[in-house]
Amino acid sequence: MPEISVRGLEMPESPIRKLAPLAAAAKQRGIKVYHLNIGQPDLPTPQVGLDALKHIDRKILEYSPSQGYLSYRTKLVDYYAKYNIQVTPDDIIITSGGSEAVLFAFMSCLNPGDEIIVPEPAYANYMAFAISAGAKIRTIATTIEEGFSLPKVEKFEELINDRTRAIMICNPNNPTGYLYTRREMNQIRDLVKKYDLYLFSDEVYREYIYTGSPYISAMHLKGIEQNVILIDSVSKRYSECGIRIGALITKNAEVRKAVMKFCQARLSPPLIGQIVAEASLDAPESYYRDVYDEYVERRKCLIDGLNRIPGVYSPIPMGAFYTVAQLPVDDSEKFCRWCLETFNYEGETVMLAPAAGFYTTPGAGINQVRIAYVLKKEDLERALVVLSKALEAYPGRTELR
Amino acid sequence: MPEISVRGLEMPESPIRKLAPLAAAAKQRGIKVYHLNIGQPDLPTPQVGLDALKHIDRKILEYSPSQGYLSYRTKLVDYYAKYNIQVTPDDIIITSGGSEAVLFAFMSCLNPGDEIIVPEPAYANYMAFAISAGAKIRTIATTIEEGFSLPKVEKFEELINDRTRAIMICNPNNPTGYLYTRREMNQIRDLVKKYDLYLFSDEVYREYIYTGSPYISAMHLKGIEQNVILIDSVSKRYSECGIRIGALITKNAEVRKAVMKFCQARLSPPLIGQIVAEASLDAPESYYRDVYDEYVERRKCLIDGLNRIPGVYSPIPMGAFYTVAQLPVDDSEKFCRWCLETFNYEGETVMLAPAAGFYTTPGAGINQVRIAYVLKKEDLERALVVLSKALEAYPGRTELR
Repeated sequence: MPEISVRGLEMPESPIRKLAPLAAAAKQRGIKVYHLNIGQPDLPTPQVGLDALKHIDRKILEYSPSQGYLSYRTKLVDYYAKYNIQVTPDDIIITSGGSEAVLFAFMSCLNPGDEIIVPEPAYANYMAFAISAGAKIRTIATTIEEGFSLPKVEKFEELINDRTRAIMICNPNNPTGYLYTRREMNQIRDLVKKYDLYLFSDEVYREYIYTGSPYISAMHLKGIEQNVILIDSVSKRYSECGIRIGALITKNAEVRKAVMKFCQARLSPPLIGQIVAEASLDAPESYYRDVYDEYVERRKCLIDGLNRIPGVYSPIPMGAFYTVAQLPVDDSEKFCRWCLETFNYEGETVMLAPAAGFYTTPGAGINQVRIAYVLKKEDLERALVVLSKALEAYPGRTELR
Repeated sequence: MPEISVRGLEMPESPIRKLAPLAAAAKQRGIKVYHLNIGQPDLPTPQVGLDALKHIDRKILEYSPSQGYLSYRTKLVDYYAKYNIQVTPDDIIITSGGSEAVLFAFMSCLNPGDEIIVPEPAYANYMAFAISAGAKIRTIATTIEEGFSLPKVEKFEELINDRTRAIMICNPNNPTGYLYTRREMNQIRDLVKKYDLYLFSDEVYREYIYTGSPYISAMHLKGIEQNVILIDSVSKRYSECGIRIGALITKNAEVRKAVMKFCQARLSPPLIGQIVAEASLDAPESYYRDVYDEYVERRKCLIDGLNRIPGVYSPIPMGAFYTVAQLPVDDSEKFCRWCLETFNYEGETVMLAPAAGFYTTPGAGINQVRIAYVLKKEDLERALVVLSKALEAYPGRTELR
């Protein structure tokens, strides 16, 4: 039997999805599971998107252009203009989810052995895409104690060597909910410029910023226009995770040319998803406002609730719909497994994402979890009760700090 | 400005899609273009699939499981059983098109520098996915003169060295329409067994076999069950190229485990596409028969018509809906460009895929094109007239052979 590839062995399992079989087994046993592990909002898709789906009147579900429909790309230009991101339809390449945008960016910009600096904790799949491309992620630590703010520029420079080719950020951040400040974004800009790096900027949560702070896109930064590659997705914006529509956007024509070759190889992004996503751009202002207001409520509910549980600490996330919280447990992965395999409170349990999978530093995040506040408030409140009972009962509970 | 990756430079442009901008420009000038370049059937998607699309009654277009819906995988088991392919739902992983299945198979099974033997001409995107994975395609020549039959086993063995890890076939073949015989399949089986290779078998055209010859799946071959990875897609079977639903199927649990990590990283295959594909499995027998009968007609129309044009030669393809034909031209890419840029006959022209892009041997296929018979008979007949006029007028025409 031939061996599988080294890459296949090195690929991490998703910290978000790998416990899914345990959750399925718990459900089989009749346990209700509150899914706080995954960024799958329970909020409705915009009605205009659902209507467009119902009204598809094609006889053939044919290929779309490899770059994505021009009509959709044209309409996206106006969407980005609202955020003061000035692009043309040519700058935009539609991808199968933001995931494919990250993969193609890495494939097009990085050689095997090249290094990407990523603040950790980081979205775990960046690691998977880096391994796919043979590139190496070098993480720069941010800590829960400092609210996940970026360390000083010197810490970045310590990591930069002749294989460093890129910095990658997620802003607002998944998993921490952190929003980069003007000072931090300028610091990144200066590094990118000084060392002529690519800046991959995943900004799929731009709708969800809860403080008065401004959203600063990597595409707002002056002087590094040719270095920036914006990663986007409609998954979270419109509760359309399943349609697999993302985008890779850059002013760099050489990068677009390379990315388009990967796009041609996979033929086209999903046809129906593009139709739904294009229609969803016409969602009324009230849709965005309602969704936003809902997350504001949920954030308050979750963070207050977490910090009331003895031994639990969560900073207040400024954006996205996640937080990384510290639990009074020996090992959060053991705890998460135990919640699904052993524990229930009145027939219910919680599923969380062990945070160690978002760090590359060994031991980092061992007692942390990522929690997504994507459930409605009553469910979140109930999940907090169940979590608190679980922490009381868990045999690996540690001393309160 | 940072450089793009070597891989980004090496990626081939799609021979099928790279001339698309010229076709778009021709259409802008009011020229009607007959698309014989791309395997985009004009036949309708099954009504059951279209109905399922219309009846989607979800409020949230959510993620599906990374492996694809169990209900769909379960139903596929019966579909494959009709072809005497015995699999379980666990053996099946749903992908974003057959393309992703090829990419993940290469990523999971091949290390950078590993070699795959592929008979040429071959589907051009295998090359792109090999480059993505850092693997190397070594081609074994088949020729139009010999009807693209496989060379003797010795020719394969000449290519096998300690980096050889796999053989890849497409059966029935894209681009040639060739169908591997029992003898050829046994020859491949013996090689796979002797050298413990993977066998990647792309069988997306199994519905379209026009001779009395049996379809022999790689999964029918005894003794290499752990080596075979089947690539599939609903694109051609149901005229559903746009929904991006394919599958990777293997009895090898280690391979599935590795592939699943790539699947988790990209989260999930398209949700809506899976709903449509699952419903399409209920297409009545009459759907398959009508589509089949239509291709039989078109094949006859195209091949007869081609061979009537002076200087043109096409073997009779036994399956799929392509043929590779030889034209009396200096360079088929120049000819294809000229058809789109310069030529028209009564306001019409043809778009063909230059065949050189399906070969890796320099100079091979220089006067060949791939032609897809995916247009209705009247259009095919008219396209043949236009092609014949183009060949008369083309300045780079060569002597008749």
